[in-house]
Amino acid sequence: MKKIFLFSITNKSKEFPLARVGVIHTPHGDIHTPAFITVGTKATVKSLTPEQIKDYVGAQAVLANTYHLYLQPGDEFVKNHGGFAKMMHWHGPTFTDSGGFQVFSLGQALGHGVSKIATSEEISKSEASKNRREKKEDEKSVHEKLAFIDEDGVTFKSIHDGSEHRFTPEISMQIQHNLGADMFFAFDECTSPLAPKDYQVEAMDRTHRWAKRSLDEHKKLGVSEATGLQQALFGVVQGGAYEDLRRESARTLGAMDFDGYGIGGSFTKEDMGTAVRWVCEELPENKPRHLLGIGEPLDILLAIENGIDTFDCVAPTRIARNGAIYTKDGRINLNNAKYKNDMSPVSDDESWYTHKYTKSYLNHLFKSDEILAYTIASIHNLKFITQLVDDARKSLEKGTYKKFKEEFLEKYYNDRC
Amino acid sequence: MKKIFLFSITNKSKEFPLARVGVIHTPHGDIHTPAFITVGTKATVKSLTPEQIKDYVGAQAVLANTYHLYLQPGDEFVKNHGGFAKMMHWHGPTFTDSGGFQVFSLGQALGHGVSKIATSEEISKSEASKNRREKKEDEKSVHEKLAFIDEDGVTFKSIHDGSEHRFTPEISMQIQHNLGADMFFAFDECTSPLAPKDYQVEAMDRTHRWAKRSLDEHKKLGVSEATGLQQALFGVVQGGAYEDLRRESARTLGAMDFDGYGIGGSFTKEDMGTAVRWVCEELPENKPRHLLGIGEPLDILLAIENGIDTFDCVAPTRIARNGAIYTKDGRINLNNAKYKNDMSPVSDDESWYTHKYTKSYLNHLFKSDEILAYTIASIHNLKFITQLVDDARKSLEKGTYKKFKEEFLEKYYNDRC
Repeated sequence: MKKIFLFSITNKSKEFPLARVGVIHTPHGDIHTPAFITVGTKATVKSLTPEQIKDYVGAQAVLANTYHLYLQPGDEFVKNHGGFAKMMHWHGPTFTDSGGFQVFSLGQALGHGVSKIATSEEISKSEASKNRREKKEDEKSVHEKLAFIDEDGVTFKSIHDGSEHRFTPEISMQIQHNLGADMFFAFDECTSPLAPKDYQVEAMDRTHRWAKRSLDEHKKLGVSEATGLQQALFGVVQGGAYEDLRRESARTLGAMDFDGYGIGGSFTKEDMGTAVRWVCEELPENKPRHLLGIGEPLDILLAIENGIDTFDCVAPTRIARNGAIYTKDGRINLNNAKYKNDMSPVSDDESWYTHKYTKSYLNHLFKSDEILAYTIASIHNLKFITQLVDDARKSLEKGTYKKFKEEFLEKYYNDRC
Repeated sequence: MKKIFLFSITNKSKEFPLARVGVIHTPHGDIHTPAFITVGTKATVKSLTPEQIKDYVGAQAVLANTYHLYLQPGDEFVKNHGGFAKMMHWHGPTFTDSGGFQVFSLGQALGHGVSKIATSEEISKSEASKNRREKKEDEKSVHEKLAFIDEDGVTFKSIHDGSEHRFTPEISMQIQHNLGADMFFAFDECTSPLAPKDYQVEAMDRTHRWAKRSLDEHKKLGVSEATGLQQALFGVVQGGAYEDLRRESARTLGAMDFDGYGIGGSFTKEDMGTAVRWVCEELPENKPRHLLGIGEPLDILLAIENGIDTFDCVAPTRIARNGAIYTKDGRINLNNAKYKNDMSPVSDDESWYTHKYTKSYLNHLFKSDEILAYTIASIHNLKFITQLVDDARKSLEKGTYKKFKEEFLEKYYNDRC
């Protein structure tokens, strides 16, 4: 299969041996890395038009969610539009995730935030309860929330109507071909950091087998029928919080013919940088690396210095809808009464869209439950994180990353330390 | 007081003797009339940025609500921003209403849609119950919803927290000077069409006395302290559904030194055109006429042919948030299952912003409760009504209004007749 997807490293950091500046070339334009990827879960970046994403945020790429689009409106429907990008009128590069994270987190631990997957023992118990449920359909049990994993794939319930669905590596590839992103991810099992090591090993080995099956299915499918274009497939490294497993996973997948790599799983703040380093030390240098679902300023900076090229995270728009915005002096909440008469601009930077609005106006809009509050705060937060990563890239190019990072963190976390 | 506010009639219809084309000159630019005025109740057009209002809707002016901005964030607060237009970053012409309609409708008949004001008898009863309430504060009675009218003004309760407030003509003027719109309205009593004639007479006479007090207070206040600019004051014609009262009200206010006129009150579909005609036959020809709170396509066209220059209405954005959009073939609801696979564009007209999106994509966004659904549908509906009035203006200029109106109405109401 012809490779039209290229990654060039244009600059390597002298301060941090793993950190690099590069360009991902896609059929829809280049992504200058490190880059923050804006999340458009259901083929919409929440509360923003595509023009606002491009012009006000300066986003380089959008990532949509396979799980959500598969359930609503359905991937065949998206395919009829020529892929999710065409459907939402985003003309730049795109990603879709594999659906793995949502299947495991939404399928079983709704609302807990952390993805906890069932251990073998729990699965056996659940299977048993499932059999009982088939006999007593009205009996509601906690086990109904579980996603059921077997060697072939995962059976899970829809968050919309509880209907049963099944993802396998092949199905995930077929769906993602219909969604038509430039870059997409192999189907993986996202384990909880709380799961014991023997289960982490089992899940990692299965993720590797699923990675091979994802690659095979992708090759079989060829170009995306939705877009008529070649897509780039990224393998997803797992292995929990264990150095030996993370390194093994990175080496195993690194030896496969992927176009790039995702790093999955949950990390604590403390081991984020370390775990990313283990993985990036093992991965082939010439392929792009995406850290899945990470977006806190500190996490982003730790990841960049340890060799990550791209990130995605829903935090900027999620916190925006609650009234929270990022500032260089840390996060603030515009619902706070002290902003009622604060005539200072939402952004200090005159070149930002959100400079024109006062904090007091946004306080008024949030108090009045006006939708425009969400839009302006979302634009602001996405711009903040996008700009942070852009600034990090420029400082890497100039060899001043360490200084940039220290100055940013000191100011940003000062109030909270 | 120096008049910087001018209205020029550029074209008179030969088909309809009252219909005219004109230009309202304001310190923030010209409004070509007939024109639809976009409503920005709380200094935000719901779910839209000012750029979208200008670029996608093509709005000529924005009208904000005195009642709402007085309660939240407060008119002094808006004044500190240099007026509501500066606060929301709308650079074109602006209006504020008098607060009268909301005081009477929200103050007493929350959720009933129609403004029903208390008769003298009801007021006496309410006053009595109010006295009782002062003794028994915990006793909740339906009378607590009422607004209490006296010769001097109105006492009403906030929709936010039930706190008691008072508007008089003087207070309404002071508030509207703080809000700083180019054009604003005298404080009026908005009667219910259900109120008996003797009450309509009483209310109308009071509205005329309040009009005089509004004018006097406006002259006393001078230029807006919020903007440093001269504002234009419109008197509001009342009189219910009675020809003699409507004509009397128009003549009485027409003889006063107002810069323009609003027509207030509720109308039935049947008598809309007729009541507007009575009023416009009496009003001075050389001053602009604004029909308050009217926005259905048929109502707009009837009003234009009977001499109205401007309108405002929340319907376009309100119905948009429920999934309803205007099309040339009538109103449709995008939540309807039949739009799930409808790949036709939201707007047929390629020059409209909403042409780029499919109906099926909007169906998906509405099903997913995505905010972008409200934004796109609101842009579409505001553009539809704005364009309808723009097209009506052009047809008046060409002398083809009658044909334009008939063709539009036949297509628009066809499915529903």
